[in-house]
Amino acid sequence: MAEHPIRFGILGCANIARKLSRAISLSPNATVVAVGSRSLDKAQRFIADNGLPPATRAHGSYEAVLDDPAVDAVYVPLPTSLHERWAVAAAERGKHVLLEKPTALSVAELDRILEACASTGVQFMDGTMWLHHPRTARMKELLSDAGRFGPPKVVHSSFSFLASSEFLNKDIRTKPDLDSLGALGDLGWYCIGAILWAVGYELPAFVTALPALHLNQAGVILSCASSFHWDDGKVATFHCSFLSQVTMDLSVHGTMGSLQVEDLAIPYQEDSASFEFNSGAHFAELHIGWSPKPDKVTVAADLPQEALMVSEFARLVQMIRSSHRRPDPKWPDISRRTQLLVDAVKQSIENNFKPVNL
Amino acid sequence: MAEHPIRFGILGCANIARKLSRAISLSPNATVVAVGSRSLDKAQRFIADNGLPPATRAHGSYEAVLDDPAVDAVYVPLPTSLHERWAVAAAERGKHVLLEKPTALSVAELDRILEACASTGVQFMDGTMWLHHPRTARMKELLSDAGRFGPPKVVHSSFSFLASSEFLNKDIRTKPDLDSLGALGDLGWYCIGAILWAVGYELPAFVTALPALHLNQAGVILSCASSFHWDDGKVATFHCSFLSQVTMDLSVHGTMGSLQVEDLAIPYQEDSASFEFNSGAHFAELHIGWSPKPDKVTVAADLPQEALMVSEFARLVQMIRSSHRRPDPKWPDISRRTQLLVDAVKQSIENNFKPVNL
Repeated sequence: MAEHPIRFGILGCANIARKLSRAISLSPNATVVAVGSRSLDKAQRFIADNGLPPATRAHGSYEAVLDDPAVDAVYVPLPTSLHERWAVAAAERGKHVLLEKPTALSVAELDRILEACASTGVQFMDGTMWLHHPRTARMKELLSDAGRFGPPKVVHSSFSFLASSEFLNKDIRTKPDLDSLGALGDLGWYCIGAILWAVGYELPAFVTALPALHLNQAGVILSCASSFHWDDGKVATFHCSFLSQVTMDLSVHGTMGSLQVEDLAIPYQEDSASFEFNSGAHFAELHIGWSPKPDKVTVAADLPQEALMVSEFARLVQMIRSSHRRPDPKWPDISRRTQLLVDAVKQSIENNFKPVNL
Repeated sequence: MAEHPIRFGILGCANIARKLSRAISLSPNATVVAVGSRSLDKAQRFIADNGLPPATRAHGSYEAVLDDPAVDAVYVPLPTSLHERWAVAAAERGKHVLLEKPTALSVAELDRILEACASTGVQFMDGTMWLHHPRTARMKELLSDAGRFGPPKVVHSSFSFLASSEFLNKDIRTKPDLDSLGALGDLGWYCIGAILWAVGYELPAFVTALPALHLNQAGVILSCASSFHWDDGKVATFHCSFLSQVTMDLSVHGTMGSLQVEDLAIPYQEDSASFEFNSGAHFAELHIGWSPKPDKVTVAADLPQEALMVSEFARLVQMIRSSHRRPDPKWPDISRRTQLLVDAVKQSIENNFKPVNL
C-alpha cells in the first residue's frame, strides 16, 4: 500500500510557523493541508504569503482545524500557555501532535498532553530541530566512543540572542500570560536538552539555579543560569539570555576527548554543519605546546534540519497508520526529561537558588 | 649606559624550571647565571642537561643563590608551600621575584611576599605566561571595542588534563604538604585569571563553589567548579580538573560580540596562536541560519610566550635599576586579585558551597 504523505494542519500563524510550513513542504512524506487562525483572513494570507497550494484550507479557528477530517497531524506553534489546551484537544480528536518548544509551562501540563496522546495512540514530538540534523547523530557516535571520548565529565552550554527593544516590549516570550518561562523556555530549553543529550538523558541528582537572573518588570526571565549535578561527579552549567549576542554553544569534555559546537540549535547554513572534536591530546616536551588540534568535522544535510524533523515525525505517523505500531516513546520521553529540568531550574530560581532534587 | 641582561638565579630544578630556563636563555635581556638545588649534584646536572653555559654557577642550596651577588632576580618554581619563605627571603636580599603560580597557599601569604617586595623595591611577577602572548593583547583590544563587543555578560572557562596514575600518586600538586590547592591552584589559577582578565579585573561581588568536587584521599582538590557573580548581573563559571582530557577553553560573551579560545594557557604551537571572534551576528530570514560566522584571528609570536614574560619582567627590572623607577604595581595587583578568588573558591568549598562575599 503506497503511503500518502502525512497531512498537516497548522494551528496559528506565528513567525515560526512560516519556517515549519516550508519544512513540511520540503519533506517528501508530509504536506500542509490546512491553516487555522483566530482570523480567517490571517489564515488565508498565511497560505498565500508562504506559497502553499491554493487548495490548502484556511480555517477561522483552531477548532475547525481539529475538526477537519483531512488533517492527520497538527503542528502547534501557539504561545506556551495555550499548549495544553490545544495539544490535548488535538490528541483527543486523533490528530498526531508536533508541538513547538517549550512543550508546556510545567511538567504537569505536559503530562496531561502526553496522557492524551497515549490514550488515543497518536505520536507526540516537540519541535527541537537540531536533534534531527545528521551532525547530531555524528556527534553522538563520537561521544559514545569509549576509546576516544570516555565518560563525559563536564558539559557547558550557552544560548542567547540580543533582543531588540521591540522584542522586549512586545514578543510573547516576554509576556507572563503567554510564555512566562521567557528565555528559560525559549533558549534554556536548548541548553537543557543539549546537556541531557550529551549525557545520554540521565537525569541529574539535583539542579541549582545560579544567582545570575534578569527578570523583566512582569517577572518573566530575560536571562538565567544553572548548574546540574550527577552523583558520579559529572557537572553541567548553562546560561541563556535575551540580552547578549547570538550564541548556541555546547562543549562536552570527557576523560579522553572533547567536543565543541557553536551553532547547535540553528546551523550557520542549511546544507552542512560542523563541530570540533579532539581526542587523546597531550603536552609536548617541556609543555611548550600540545597536540593534536581538534578535528573540524563537517556533516552534510540533504534537507534542512526542520524538514528532517517533520520527515521523522511523518514516518512514525505513517508506521502507526499502516502497521498499527504504537507511537515511538523516545520523543515524548526526551520532551518530558527536558521539561522536568526546566521546571527544576524555575523552582530553584523561585526558591532563592536552593538546590532542587530530582 | 648599555643595560646588561638581567641575571637570573633559579631556585629548584622542577620540571617547569626547564621550560623557564629555556625561556630566560631565549630572552634578549635576560640570562641564567645560577641554579640552586638542595643537592649540588642535581643543580650541576640541571645546568648540563639544559644546555646552560658552563659558567653558570651551581649551588647546593637555595640560600646560596640568594647570597650570590651576581644574581639580580630569582625564578621560584618551588612547591607552593615554600613560596612565602623563599620569595620573602629573595626580596629581603634585594632580588627581584618571578614566582611560579599559584603564588601562595593564601592571600595572607601572598601579602607577606608582596610587602617584602614593596619594602625593598623589587619587581614581583607571577609565572602566568599567556598574559604575555601577543594574542592576549589582540583579544583585549577586541573585548574593549564597545561598538563590536559591548559589555561582557557571561564568561566560561575550563582547564583540565588527564593525569596519569603516577601523577595522581606522586606529583607535588596532589600532596597536602606541598601544593594543597591541587587542581584549583594549578589549573583553576588560569580559569580565575582568565575570567578576571576578561572583565578588566573587576572583582565579583561573591563567589560560590559548585557542588562538583573531587578530592583525593589526602583532601587535595582533583577537580572543582565555581561561579562568580557581579552586581551588574555578569556571571562567570569555571571548571578545573586533573581528571579529563586537556582543555584550556575561555569563552566571553558580550551584548554585541563573542570570543572563544581553546588553547589559552599553552598555545598549540609556539610561533602563533588563534582565537575566534564574532560580532553583530543575526538570524537569517525565517531563522534558517545565522551569520556572520566567527572570524578566526591568528597572531604571530616572535618568541615563546614564556620568553616574552621573562623579557617583560627583565625590562621592568632594568628600568628600576637604570632609572630608579618604582616596580610596576600592575603585576602584583593581578596576582593578588587572582589569589583572592582562589581563596574565595576554597573557602566556599570548605563552607559547604556557600557564597563567599568579597
